[in-house]
Amino acid sequence: MLTAACRARGLAAARTQLKRTARLRAGSTATLDALREELARTGVDAFVIPSDDPHLSEYVAPCFERRAFASGFTGSAGTAVVLRDRALCWTDGRYWLQASAQLEAGWELVEAGAPGVDGVAAWLGSDAARGVASVGIDARVTAAAFADAIGEHVEVRHLDENPVDAVWTERPAMPAAPLRLHPPEFAGEDVASKLARVRAATSKLGASGLVVSALDEVCWLFNVRGGDVACNPVALAYAYVDHASATLFVDAAKVPKDVADALAQANVDLRAYERALPFIRAAAAEADVCVDPARCSAAVVDAVAEQHRVARPCPVADFKSVKNAAELTAMRAAHVRDGAAVARAFSRLEKRVQGGTEASELDVDALLLEERSRDPTFIEPSFPTIAGAGANGALIHGAPSDSLVTTSTLLLVDSGGQYRDGTTDATRTMHFGVPSKKEVRAFTAVLKGHIGLDVAVFPEDTIGFVLDAFARKALWACGLDYGHGTGHGVGAALNVHEGPISVSPRFANKSVLKNGMVLSNEPGYYQAGAFGVRIENLLAIEPAPVPRVPDGKAFLRFSYLTLIPIDATCIDVAMLDAAEVAWVDAYHADVRRQLSPLLEGEALEWLVRKTAPLN
Amino acid sequence: MLTAACRARGLAAARTQLKRTARLRAGSTATLDALREELARTGVDAFVIPSDDPHLSEYVAPCFERRAFASGFTGSAGTAVVLRDRALCWTDGRYWLQASAQLEAGWELVEAGAPGVDGVAAWLGSDAARGVASVGIDARVTAAAFADAIGEHVEVRHLDENPVDAVWTERPAMPAAPLRLHPPEFAGEDVASKLARVRAATSKLGASGLVVSALDEVCWLFNVRGGDVACNPVALAYAYVDHASATLFVDAAKVPKDVADALAQANVDLRAYERALPFIRAAAAEADVCVDPARCSAAVVDAVAEQHRVARPCPVADFKSVKNAAELTAMRAAHVRDGAAVARAFSRLEKRVQGGTEASELDVDALLLEERSRDPTFIEPSFPTIAGAGANGALIHGAPSDSLVTTSTLLLVDSGGQYRDGTTDATRTMHFGVPSKKEVRAFTAVLKGHIGLDVAVFPEDTIGFVLDAFARKALWACGLDYGHGTGHGVGAALNVHEGPISVSPRFANKSVLKNGMVLSNEPGYYQAGAFGVRIENLLAIEPAPVPRVPDGKAFLRFSYLTLIPIDATCIDVAMLDAAEVAWVDAYHADVRRQLSPLLEGEALEWLVRKTAPLN
Repeated sequence: MLTAACRARGLAAARTQLKRTARLRAGSTATLDALREELARTGVDAFVIPSDDPHLSEYVAPCFERRAFASGFTGSAGTAVVLRDRALCWTDGRYWLQASAQLEAGWELVEAGAPGVDGVAAWLGSDAARGVASVGIDARVTAAAFADAIGEHVEVRHLDENPVDAVWTERPAMPAAPLRLHPPEFAGEDVASKLARVRAATSKLGASGLVVSALDEVCWLFNVRGGDVACNPVALAYAYVDHASATLFVDAAKVPKDVADALAQANVDLRAYERALPFIRAAAAEADVCVDPARCSAAVVDAVAEQHRVARPCPVADFKSVKNAAELTAMRAAHVRDGAAVARAFSRLEKRVQGGTEASELDVDALLLEERSRDPTFIEPSFPTIAGAGANGALIHGAPSDSLVTTSTLLLVDSGGQYRDGTTDATRTMHFGVPSKKEVRAFTAVLKGHIGLDVAVFPEDTIGFVLDAFARKALWACGLDYGHGTGHGVGAALNVHEGPISVSPRFANKSVLKNGMVLSNEPGYYQAGAFGVRIENLLAIEPAPVPRVPDGKAFLRFSYLTLIPIDATCIDVAMLDAAEVAWVDAYHADVRRQLSPLLEGEALEWLVRKTAPLN
Repeated sequence: MLTAACRARGLAAARTQLKRTARLRAGSTATLDALREELARTGVDAFVIPSDDPHLSEYVAPCFERRAFASGFTGSAGTAVVLRDRALCWTDGRYWLQASAQLEAGWELVEAGAPGVDGVAAWLGSDAARGVASVGIDARVTAAAFADAIGEHVEVRHLDENPVDAVWTERPAMPAAPLRLHPPEFAGEDVASKLARVRAATSKLGASGLVVSALDEVCWLFNVRGGDVACNPVALAYAYVDHASATLFVDAAKVPKDVADALAQANVDLRAYERALPFIRAAAAEADVCVDPARCSAAVVDAVAEQHRVARPCPVADFKSVKNAAELTAMRAAHVRDGAAVARAFSRLEKRVQGGTEASELDVDALLLEERSRDPTFIEPSFPTIAGAGANGALIHGAPSDSLVTTSTLLLVDSGGQYRDGTTDATRTMHFGVPSKKEVRAFTAVLKGHIGLDVAVFPEDTIGFVLDAFARKALWACGLDYGHGTGHGVGAALNVHEGPISVSPRFANKSVLKNGMVLSNEPGYYQAGAFGVRIENLLAIEPAPVPRVPDGKAFLRFSYLTLIPIDATCIDVAMLDAAEVAWVDAYHADVRRQLSPLLEGEALEWLVRKTAPLN
């Protein structure tokens, strides 16, 4: 599944025809009126209302969707600004159409990312916002870097209470899902060992304490999982680690006895979630504390006194990105069962569409959920399924609609599951009739790119973007390209998007590829108004079996985790070279070998048919 | 031919076994004593003596080799520092052995680039140099950026006279080669048109005047060539362009009547070389002037008063890098004749080595020079030939020696010519007997990389480094790599190394590839103590014949200029895929078709044999 930033770039490019100017819906709402009373009460000139949770998570629990409540716009990205006489909502190209339909009376849409359009911070400092001298924020849900950017233009006042909460009488409760242990056979390293590595890394950064704010990092560190956020198996929690102790700040009611016992055994202190910031503040009064301003809220960063602040990326992110043998074994096991579930779903879908029974994109999503749910270790989708038939396949973040899947259009399906032992994320593009020459050409070029990255051998510590061109080479040779990155890091039974690595033509990310990392390989092609193609497997990085040159580097290669047939209906075998044909046949033989023990009847028959050699 | 920086990196890596500490040769020399008298006379604590000319050229005329005169070390890169009680010479890994052999009494070698070793500027500010409060430089031959760097640590005093010249009684005269016109059929654009483009670009940068300091830029702008610097067909000259006028500052004695007439016709004023800085100083008193501190001497930058200084790269570099149709036609014509000369030289070399007559690396150089010199348009080599037999092939900058070329080792030959119509630069690796399996494997992997870059199709404005991995992919798959970049820009009948583009794994250079640019494609492999392989063609960038997607990018591809057989003796055809075999055969058929009309006798017979299809 593409990262949000990737999708945003793709869509922004596709929608350059839209008008850039802010649109105004006249009037006001009771909510807006009430927010303006709060403005008057608190004495600031504007509120900035982001849609972040206190951990700057990619997905947030409903109680943190304050921007959506205030403005009516429910997209996953956007920032609202309420002034005395105006109310504006910034969102990126993916959401301009949705926002202009949803924003309530009195709200103006600002098309973020369009040429010449200021971001929130710059706008607050511009002539357009003159009269705004002070801005109120809730530092607990405002990114430190964003608060700093605003502070470069106007005075920022930290509000004791979130202004939206004063108005949002039926605000959902904080999520309260129980924690569960991530067992040793899946985690592969105990908490004591992880803490020892984290403490050593913290010392090396020149600090004695470390704030862990990202939810997946907290869960990885303590070998626990949660259910507070849809799609991401994490719990709302902070961690603080120093030489003497490790503390997990989480609502005690969420911690079952087995989890509490395990944490106690690992010498992890449990404290209330609300105690995190006061605790950190007290700790930082006496010790240097590492905290990452790029990935923490303003409140967390402010809790560490400036003279004791070691502003560095949290070392947990790097540790978490390199999977150990147990994590990889568990990931592979999850991919076998996930592949079988997808095979059952796709075989049922094919029968339905080719049999003339209607099936919509929403039905595709439902079939996948139904088949994945047969597995007792399945928890939930790892992200909202993307299912696009025909032209919808070119909407890079297209949510499933009631558009019908037919025998005359391509279908792009990007979906994944969270299992106890692993996280999956795969895209397949298929055709239930006879694809057009154009579709076959694009599909085959994307497949060649997918294979091009899959078979790459490269020196250890190569930066991800160095390999990006391998996935584009065949598309470029046809005069085609795609507007998103090729790969993102993936968690082991954790978030489907995780840092630090990526494979992308944007060379800002200089993180290097290491043995044990897991990432996606998802080149694509999108012809607006016509069709979309994407072929995505997850890959693990492993040593390449090449002779080691004296004093030379070690070399790495990829090993796919995903086991789902690639639709040969859409392949022009003549465009493939012998090695590519051999790759497809070997992949399909492996898929058949691994999935057939889990399948029977029509699904097994489908698998056998879909994994036949190309020639 | 690799750029100096590339070679430096490769060699520095190969020589990490050397000791890092400075070595002292006891005593002093008359030169050093005299320089210390100059120190006393001028009242500074140290002199910094670089080996630059006033234009920061890659190659310099003998009169500018002041560092070599002062220290005895003749390598092309290095900086000397003379203090009252010490004398030090910094040079990079290529030259540590040579410098420690050549440096005269009283001099210490500083191994620049070694871990923990300060550069000149940082060293002058370090404890090691305490007592040094002021440093004297000749701003005319000191890079502005270097002078600024020194100035961050100690006081920099600009000396009226170069301290070395006071001592160097037999200093060579300034070069005085005559200018010649670069005719319209080779230049393809007249001076008026170039000036109009340069003026528009200067205005766009917010300046009304432009200083052109790089010698190849001056020559390109005025469609002239010179002979003041070995290998580079340039004249010592500055240019200044503003809206009203264009001035060429060059020694009048070097300007024949036809050149003077052509310049007058183009409304170019001629002034004495020495008038450049006073003229620029006067111009900058009244107007904003664009000058590039990264590529000009401190004296040139200082001539532009700070309040009028527009510090930006000179737009001529970008214009020059994009060749027009006439330049490309002329370059292709030069490559045909150069290919025929190299074919004659290589066929004679083969006959000699296989016939049992001794031939050394120096003989290889002589044969190439002899055969190239038969062409009346040949001027000189475009760089000093690199010829390395056996283990010498792994010395990336290896100058030819009296080592013998035999039937039992690989021979690497990197050479090129300056012709009236074009510049060539090609590397071939060959074997006159039966290469080992290891040599064949490395050669074939390098060839696959060479083909991988040659056949690439890519979107316009792709940054060079994006394509670098195409040249390494096959080597990586064998666990091999090379420590230098893959390509550099090449001038059209100008310098063999020119900016701004490169294809390199070092992602610092973000210059983009454009239609009409010329660059080298030179992957390699070097096994220290055993052998070296490099296969280099020059490539021109041209539009790729792919269908243009609506609103999509234009695509580009490469077209080789170099026409020299690739030694099939060293190819393992089984390692090539069908497309690679077809590439080699098509290349050889083209080489045969284009060169055979220029060859006869044994050279023609050699060509026919060396361009036979692989199977």
